[in-house]
Amino acid sequence: MIGQTPAPPYYAVIFSSQRGAADPDYDQAAERMLQLARRQPGFLGVESARGADGFGITLSYWIREAAILAWKHHAEHSAIRERGRNDWYQYAHTRVGKVERAYAVRPQAQARTAVHSGPGLPPDQS
Amino acid sequence: MIGQTPAPPYYAVIFSSQRGAADPDYDQAAERMLQLARRQPGFLGVESARGADGFGITLSYWIREAAILAWKHHAEHSAIRERGRNDWYQYAHTRVGKVERAYAVRPQAQARTAVHSGPGLPPDQS
Repeated sequence: MIGQTPAPPYYAVIFSSQRGAADPDYDQAAERMLQLARRQPGFLGVESARGADGFGITLSYWIREAAILAWKHHAEHSAIRERGRNDWYQYAHTRVGKVERAYAVRPQAQARTAVHSGPGLPPDQS
Repeated sequence: MIGQTPAPPYYAVIFSSQRGAADPDYDQAAERMLQLARRQPGFLGVESARGADGFGITLSYWIREAAILAWKHHAEHSAIRERGRNDWYQYAHTRVGKVERAYAVRPQAQARTAVHSGPGLPPDQS
């Protein structure tokens, strides 16, 4: 599902990554990261997609840059991020941007207000 | 593959979408959109991932906002975008942002410099 973000401006963390071989630890860590992120102040939502080729994109949305920084320095997040860097990704790239314009090209039904979480939040998304 | 973008700042178009049923026309249109985008002035690269559930994210990167606007008003792009809106997406959302920071979490090998294009550029990405 598409994240239910407020009117811009807000911030986006764009995490692009190429997964290596499947690892159940990864799935567990991604689920845990999502749980933790949702508790962070200023967290607005997340969207995630990964194709059969292992290439994936995760977007997390934040109310301001300070919220991203706090999440980046979260202790458990940092530990799992290190694991991702060493074990799970062939390569990965993070971009942080300020969303200035946003619009529904085709709105989702009103009833579907949950945020798309895919397989959880990759552990190295910020 | 991860787009080989220059040092920030530059712009990103974030297109999140839920595909409906498979349609060979879509694949052809996505491929065509990618061809056209690559010829646009100010186009920097594209990354795309779509999961088995049909939820996908496409990121296109542009040197400045005017380049995004020119692409948005490209005649063939506009026509295919309209088709996407009517036929291919259950819902879709576009966000435009200014990338302010970017870094490789884990760099990809130097030899792999092509841009990840996935199944092509969704026809409604700007």
